[in-house]
Order: sequence, then structure tokens, then C-alpha cells
Amino acid sequence: MSDEMLKSILGDLDGSSADIEASAVISTDGLTIASQLSSTMDEDRVGAMSAAMLSLGDRTAVELARGDLEQVMIKGDNGYVLLIHAGPDAVLTVIAHKAAKLGPVFLDASRAAAGIAEQL
Amino acid sequence: MSDEMLKSILGDLDGSSADIEASAVISTDGLTIASQLSSTMDEDRVGAMSAAMLSLGDRTAVELARGDLEQVMIKGDNGYVLLIHAGPDAVLTVIAHKAAKLGPVFLDASRAAAGIAEQL
Repeated sequence: MSDEMLKSILGDLDGSSADIEASAVISTDGLTIASQLSSTMDEDRVGAMSAAMLSLGDRTAVELARGDLEQVMIKGDNGYVLLIHAGPDAVLTVIAHKAAKLGPVFLDASRAAAGIAEQL
Repeated sequence: MSDEMLKSILGDLDGSSADIEASAVISTDGLTIASQLSSTMDEDRVGAMSAAMLSLGDRTAVELARGDLEQVMIKGDNGYVLLIHAGPDAVLTVIAHKAAKLGPVFLDASRAAAGIAEQL
């Protein structure tokens, strides 16, 4: 695994759109592998919430016959959290502003997740 | 609360698009208020998973500074589960096929959720 490459992919992702506020690569057990977070965003908190959402999302997808989990999106009235599987053992978490255009964010995040999966 | 009206809103929603497979109105504690589910979809299971996702989604939105939760979307390789708040005490759960066009499904589901919120 190349830490520099992961940081570079996250940097490119965050730079690709002003809509993306922060991003992180988290192992499925909740540990942060790499991150581009603002100073107000706590790394451990992002890791813990991402791992919990991923685990419940996995179970929901299976229980409701939706197959293997690919993405979870959470929309609040102040913005979005997007989780995308990056290979079997990690997830890319993307935190976006409330005015974000979802289509491009999904596309850029999916590409980044594919790039991250190659590095892990 | 008018049970007939809720059934009618869910019927209209399921009829609005071939992409929508099933839908249900669930109380935030996981009890089914009304549903349009196929015979293969278990009502209690849909209720339990919806309430769990909603609860964790609420917490994630707050912890990651995304404000009050509005929607959760789960994408599996076999389709989508969409949860939308329908007033403070209920959630509309929509289960869609994997080929679903997400934009129209979100729009129809949001309108249905607003209609359901008025009935509760």
C-alpha cells in the first residue's frame, strides 16, 4: 500500500470539486488509512461513523435482497456523507456541502474509490 | 391518521415508476404503519432495518455536522433502498430495482413523503 498515492488520490478528489469538503479512506473495522479532513472534522469520529454505517448498510442490502453493498449516501439539511466500497476491506468516505451537485460527486468519488482499491 | 390515504399514496408511488419494487411507511421505532410489499419481502424485516438505518443515519448526520437527517440511500449491486423522513415520527422506505433512474425515484419519493407527513 502506498500512503503517498492514497493521499494524492484524496487530494485530487477534494480538488476536483468545491462541493467536496473532506474525504477519508477507512478500513472496514473503522481505522483511518488516509484522510483529507478539515481541522474541525475529527478523524476517529469519521472512522467510527463510517464503519458503523458500512456494517449496517451491508446488512440492510442483504436483508432487503439488494445484493452486495456498493454505496451509502446520507443527506442532512446541511450536506451529504457518501460511503463507497474501495475494494473488499476499505471504504472511501466523502463529505460534501449541502449545495453539492450529486451526479459529479458520485462520479468523481467512484473513480477515486476504484483508484484506492488498486492501491490497497 | 387515514390508513386508506397512506395506502393510496404508496400505491400511487409504486405505480409511478416500474423502477419502484416496494414501499412502506415505518414509525421511527420500527413498526410498519402502511406498506406495499411484494410477497417475498417481509414487513417486520423492512421495518427493523429501516428503523436501524434511520437511527444510525441521524447520528452520523449530526456527528459529521450534516445537520438534521433527510434521506439515506443504500445501493447494492442488485438495487436500492431509499429512506426519507415523512414528518418527525415516520420514514418512507422505498425499494427500487438496480436499473432504477435515481432522479425520478428521489423526486416521486420526496413528494410521497411530504404527502404522508400531512396524513400522520
